[in-house]
Amino acid sequence: MLRYLTARLAQTIDQELMGVTGAFSLEQLMELAGLACAQALASVYHRDVYPRVLVCCGPGNQGGDGLVAARHLGMFGYRPTIYMPKPGSKEHYKRLQKQCENMEVPIIPPSNDIEPLQKALKQSDVVLDAIFGFSFQPPIRAPFDTVITLLNQSRLPIVSIDIPSGWDVEKGNDSGLGLQPDVLVSLTAPKEGVKDFTGRHFLGGRFVPKYLEKKYELNLPPYPGYDQIVELVSDKTPPKF
Amino acid sequence: MLRYLTARLAQTIDQELMGVTGAFSLEQLMELAGLACAQALASVYHRDVYPRVLVCCGPGNQGGDGLVAARHLGMFGYRPTIYMPKPGSKEHYKRLQKQCENMEVPIIPPSNDIEPLQKALKQSDVVLDAIFGFSFQPPIRAPFDTVITLLNQSRLPIVSIDIPSGWDVEKGNDSGLGLQPDVLVSLTAPKEGVKDFTGRHFLGGRFVPKYLEKKYELNLPPYPGYDQIVELVSDKTPPKF
Repeated sequence: MLRYLTARLAQTIDQELMGVTGAFSLEQLMELAGLACAQALASVYHRDVYPRVLVCCGPGNQGGDGLVAARHLGMFGYRPTIYMPKPGSKEHYKRLQKQCENMEVPIIPPSNDIEPLQKALKQSDVVLDAIFGFSFQPPIRAPFDTVITLLNQSRLPIVSIDIPSGWDVEKGNDSGLGLQPDVLVSLTAPKEGVKDFTGRHFLGGRFVPKYLEKKYELNLPPYPGYDQIVELVSDKTPPKF
Repeated sequence: MLRYLTARLAQTIDQELMGVTGAFSLEQLMELAGLACAQALASVYHRDVYPRVLVCCGPGNQGGDGLVAARHLGMFGYRPTIYMPKPGSKEHYKRLQKQCENMEVPIIPPSNDIEPLQKALKQSDVVLDAIFGFSFQPPIRAPFDTVITLLNQSRLPIVSIDIPSGWDVEKGNDSGLGLQPDVLVSLTAPKEGVKDFTGRHFLGGRFVPKYLEKKYELNLPPYPGYDQIVELVSDKTPPKF
């Protein structure tokens, strides 16, 4: 059975992938993760019907995944817009942002005002949530509390990366204050907190070497063909009509 | 009309992609290039019929693309084997090799003897040629002259990355000593030397920003869906029956 990871195990696996043993660079993994997220969004929300994607990025690696996804969505023919309430300060993050600018992806200037986000939501067809990842710990601090509330109120379809923003990585949306996405893209392996998630659930991160999958008994499902994503189907998934 | 690049323009574009303006890292571009090559091979040679892929890697960035492709092919369910007549010495190259080892991809130990390659060819269904890229300049030096001859004699289907190994980047296979691939995966944009290539021809490298495509009048074809490759069809392509 597919293993759901604790926050600690997710961190251990991440470190091992990028350590001496795994030998991956952050740039490589982020590129594949972001590409997987873009593919998952594209497989659910077709660009002809949902062309305008608001990509909400946090300041950390999760935000980096979002920036990669935004660039690929641009390549796929979507019209992404990037919203970063607090842009990341790392060199790689800035380079990812520059790559999006080169793709002519509009970036909403950071602001303490909620109006730019409200306006952007009115001009979007779907949201990609790349705010918090598996290192998030409650409570949700400003300005992200307001951002998450506004995203939920927008009634737009939402695709979350790895863990819906605001959820406890292990306990899920206990607080009730987290984001309520329609689609989830778990990376590497799903986290304990999303065990009861009932929306469409994809797995991305087709880079886990066999030895590592065995070592941590991840029991990952086979990915189809040469896709970077696989849809997870559980008995909690409501039937499709 | 699709632009075919001179060796010099290919180098200029590569430098611009990874410079201050393009802001890409080598790791990112190599990951996407290698993934595209793996996808192209997988779309022509199905893993159920051609499971054993001999990936021949040169010591430079082209070899790095090959190592990335080998890893992805392992992920796709192929059984790749890596042959590096002269392994690269760069840190990133070694890390890519380690990532393949973690995927339990066998690596043929470097040797001056031709027997290991001959044996590997007998145990392979298809060859991925990642020996020389767009910075190659004739003549073909040892041991690669022998390697290319053996690959041609093997009668195995061959997929070449960017430029068939041994071809002049602008003049093609004028010398007649170059590899004769069945499939070609051009990266970023095709090179002048492959204008008359009559096999199946794919384009990979779905990362060229719009401003750069316009600046150099590349006139790239649209990629389908969320694929990383697009097949190029010219009036030189023989009809499929």
